[in-house]
Amino acid sequence: MTLGSASIDTTLDVIYHLKGVIWRGDSVISGIPETLDHLRSLGKQLYFVTNNSTKSRAGYLSKFTSLGLNISADEIYSSSYAAASYLESINFPKDKKIYVIGQEGILEELELKGFKYLGGPADADHRVELKPGFRLDQDPDVGAVVVGFDRFVNYYKIQIATLCLRENPGCLFIATNLDAVTHLTDAQEWAGAGSMVGALRGSTKREPTVVGKPADFMLSDIATHAGIDRSEICMVGDRLDTDIAFGKDGGLSTILVLSGVTSEEELLSPDNKIRPDAYLDSLADVLRLSTA
Amino acid sequence: MTLGSASIDTTLDVIYHLKGVIWRGDSVISGIPETLDHLRSLGKQLYFVTNNSTKSRAGYLSKFTSLGLNISADEIYSSSYAAASYLESINFPKDKKIYVIGQEGILEELELKGFKYLGGPADADHRVELKPGFRLDQDPDVGAVVVGFDRFVNYYKIQIATLCLRENPGCLFIATNLDAVTHLTDAQEWAGAGSMVGALRGSTKREPTVVGKPADFMLSDIATHAGIDRSEICMVGDRLDTDIAFGKDGGLSTILVLSGVTSEEELLSPDNKIRPDAYLDSLADVLRLSTA
Repeated sequence: MTLGSASIDTTLDVIYHLKGVIWRGDSVISGIPETLDHLRSLGKQLYFVTNNSTKSRAGYLSKFTSLGLNISADEIYSSSYAAASYLESINFPKDKKIYVIGQEGILEELELKGFKYLGGPADADHRVELKPGFRLDQDPDVGAVVVGFDRFVNYYKIQIATLCLRENPGCLFIATNLDAVTHLTDAQEWAGAGSMVGALRGSTKREPTVVGKPADFMLSDIATHAGIDRSEICMVGDRLDTDIAFGKDGGLSTILVLSGVTSEEELLSPDNKIRPDAYLDSLADVLRLSTA
Repeated sequence: MTLGSASIDTTLDVIYHLKGVIWRGDSVISGIPETLDHLRSLGKQLYFVTNNSTKSRAGYLSKFTSLGLNISADEIYSSSYAAASYLESINFPKDKKIYVIGQEGILEELELKGFKYLGGPADADHRVELKPGFRLDQDPDVGAVVVGFDRFVNYYKIQIATLCLRENPGCLFIATNLDAVTHLTDAQEWAGAGSMVGALRGSTKREPTVVGKPADFMLSDIATHAGIDRSEICMVGDRLDTDIAFGKDGGLSTILVLSGVTSEEELLSPDNKIRPDAYLDSLADVLRLSTA
């Protein structure tokens, strides 16, 4: 067991990947609640990050609460929030509108920031009729299209978003993330937001601005709001090629935990070029080691 | 008016782009029926090509017939046919299945070649339930996924196709085309097959084999079935950056007609680097010039 200094340096604030670090399936990993309390008692700010955009930060709280974890919405950083925060960061005009391919989480975060939006669940049942001369009219006041995971994606939404991006001068194309797969249920991997974004890439030949992992916006946004430098942030994750690579690329300290998908054998293999600053069997080892 | 030797050389067989060459909106361009009859009387084989995969070759006949054009299904080369012909060309096993994101045209062409298929219109109304442990089961006998334009694309189809491509060893990923836009109606441009293909690129991070324009398969397939060399083929089209570039890249003779989107001014502009072997106001000028 190797433990680098990063994990117990009290100047560090901490970002966690959720699945495989905090919970596995529908159970909290043993010792995690006490560990989070301990870190907070040391004055650390905690951020729980997820590329899932289907819920807002408030919506995510119920998942934490149902698992017996005592968290505030401000400690959650979802890609739905990232989309709204990005638009705020660029002073997107409040009199313009945002067309959404995605679910409630994005709409709720846009609402909280005072943005006007269209689309999302309201367009789930629309179909495109094929009569001669038929057309769809998009709203020329749409100045941004936000695309996230959408279980109710359909051709109507694709066409409206395509028209906005092709016809409205300067219309922004924002993606919550490009993840190929997501975890709707634990029974299998599901096609992720990469498929909804891919549809729009295919119809517009444009590349989106990505606000979730592994794009840089999320890190700079967290550092700004926390009032810290990113060198003071430690990323804790269970995947080398996503979480740890993302943290290292972003200039963070990194801790790999073995409670998720990566084994110690994979980490230490000569084939693995991605080395975290430290690794632990579980995040709960932070408590055990720092109070021993 | 410049007319190169290509258009009246009787050794050439001819491929036509349809819109802007044969018809405009719902009207045949003046003189075209007589011109086609004349070319046939010279012993030329004619192929009318389209990237539209929603109809089969037989299905397309009604469009020609309704416009008063006397054509046989064998003279039509649609990307729906290209998909089936490609699978035949690689000896795709008849005991394997093909999952289709697309409309009736692809299914009809697969049926004619004796292939087994799943998906298409039959999966238009499926939705994905979100119960704990819920999963979709794909058919392990699926050995190819064909993706074309699909007005009824939904998340169920995307997930099934993704599972086939990710889980079935060697499963082929075939796209009818990557067109950003298509012409469902003349009232506006519509998001094209590029959006359905883009969704699968996004969820699999795989690149498809493209069988329609501008991929090379279509040309080699036409040359093979016609029993001619591609240097004996002339491509007639109304777009420089698609039709003419495609013909030149493929080693064909090319004729631009000005009856569609390209003006003589654009053609002759110093900014235009794509030069056809000849150009005509309309394909009907072939008849006028060769019988003058």
